[in-house]
Amino acid sequence: MDGPFLACDWGTTNLRAWLVGADGEVAERRDFPLGVSRLQPGEAAERFRREVRPALDADALPVLMCGMIGSTLGWKVAPYVDCPVDVEALAARLLTVQDGEAPVRIVPGVRGPGLTAAPDLMRGEETQLFGWLEQDDRRARGRRVVCHPGTHAKWALIEDGRIVRFATAMTGELFSTLTRHGVLKTDVPPDDEAAFLEGVEAADDGGALSARLFSARSRVVGGGADPATASSYLSGLLIGAEIAALARRFAEPDDPVALLGDEALTRWYRLAFEDRGLPCTVHSGDEAAVEGLKALYARL
Amino acid sequence: MDGPFLACDWGTTNLRAWLVGADGEVAERRDFPLGVSRLQPGEAAERFRREVRPALDADALPVLMCGMIGSTLGWKVAPYVDCPVDVEALAARLLTVQDGEAPVRIVPGVRGPGLTAAPDLMRGEETQLFGWLEQDDRRARGRRVVCHPGTHAKWALIEDGRIVRFATAMTGELFSTLTRHGVLKTDVPPDDEAAFLEGVEAADDGGALSARLFSARSRVVGGGADPATASSYLSGLLIGAEIAALARRFAEPDDPVALLGDEALTRWYRLAFEDRGLPCTVHSGDEAAVEGLKALYARL
Repeated sequence: MDGPFLACDWGTTNLRAWLVGADGEVAERRDFPLGVSRLQPGEAAERFRREVRPALDADALPVLMCGMIGSTLGWKVAPYVDCPVDVEALAARLLTVQDGEAPVRIVPGVRGPGLTAAPDLMRGEETQLFGWLEQDDRRARGRRVVCHPGTHAKWALIEDGRIVRFATAMTGELFSTLTRHGVLKTDVPPDDEAAFLEGVEAADDGGALSARLFSARSRVVGGGADPATASSYLSGLLIGAEIAALARRFAEPDDPVALLGDEALTRWYRLAFEDRGLPCTVHSGDEAAVEGLKALYARL
Repeated sequence: MDGPFLACDWGTTNLRAWLVGADGEVAERRDFPLGVSRLQPGEAAERFRREVRPALDADALPVLMCGMIGSTLGWKVAPYVDCPVDVEALAARLLTVQDGEAPVRIVPGVRGPGLTAAPDLMRGEETQLFGWLEQDDRRARGRRVVCHPGTHAKWALIEDGRIVRFATAMTGELFSTLTRHGVLKTDVPPDDEAAFLEGVEAADDGGALSARLFSARSRVVGGGADPATASSYLSGLLIGAEIAALARRFAEPDDPVALLGDEALTRWYRLAFEDRGLPCTVHSGDEAAVEGLKALYARL
């Protein structure tokens, strides 16, 4: 469809909204602390109507939203679409939750084969992946590997514009949980590049992670390292282990991996890629999200 | 030395004490909720004198204690002894913290090469390892591999009675932290054998653990598994990954691994070993601890 609409990436902790004009340009962008983990059951629709629409002067605009808002914690469950999936197939499966002059549609998540017998899942990243493909025509041809860092990092293999398979690494969640509870608890944020790279190297081939994790403590208690560097080392260890384990499961040795996400995180991932001699490129997740929503909306 | 003494394994959460008679037999055993994580700084000596000695009618007995009581959180720091180390070398390095008629001695921890550039550490398990060796003369000859399950599981290679190297896997801590916080949070204890073995198999070669962990959730949300089985699956995944990664780093294919620890935990480990077709034997950690303390005391 043409015409102005409200594009939303409604995730676990935040809702990002872009007012997209008739010309396809973003006229305004707003963030709201309305992530689905902060909502009471059943209140998504009401809070969207009362808080989000008025703030963007978008009462009468059609809406397209992606992310955890389509999960059991969100507005209504938009059932997963199975791999392989391209942008057309996804656009055909949007869930309409409010009809009328200003319809609200939700992008389904994607389900695909993971590393175990269980399927793997994403909600929100698929829209960024399709947005990233849309940003450069060449990307929709051939084989592409994208790494999306985060609480639940995603690695995806895309072939000729279709998401073929992907894996979720709980890197961000492990980092935040282990630095808040237990023997690796620390208040110091990761900011030490040397210790980070030491962790990347300690990750080796990505195997035996539960045993390597203890080195974040024994390096300090038994090896005399500065306790203030422990979180940087742990971050390097977790990111290094993710890259070591997943790069070889997704990318051929010379495939550049596209790092798609927020600037702060992709910077650390790039450091780890460079340290391991693996090629990568860096791209904004935010820009890809709105591009993806536009690409889906255009196919309605 | 001969004669009666009080043997203690003073760990992070509990203190176990055994009254060892002049004949070397255990006359009494008591547990105290006095683990070092529950003590105020500096109060270990006082609480031991006021609560532990009187409860065992052991005011005038010499004491030998192992475990975290020799750490910075304990009574006094007993510096690590480096690998390779045998029971004689350890006995020569006991730390005396109270002299006189009823001396109190602390067993040092052991430091050795781990899986990373950082050294690995143990405090308490070394005493169980030497106790286990002491229980059967044949064990002090040749190559032995011991796995000690726990919050921080230890795998040790022992050659001709000496601890040569070891690794710590944070299996227990990962399990308790991940089931208490974040997307894998659950109140259901692990008690489902089929789901446990499904987790063991999902661990595969032990690589890519941070990515396999997410299957504990996607198996339920995307695969329709019963949420009540998630903790059993996660337990199997973590234990399976530990065994897959560490068995091949410590044991030759036909080496039986000695599982040394508490009955409930070693039962799950044995299931995982059997599922993977790896040979193992099971031994009581408790009995090994007091045997180890007796072996060290005899060498004073």
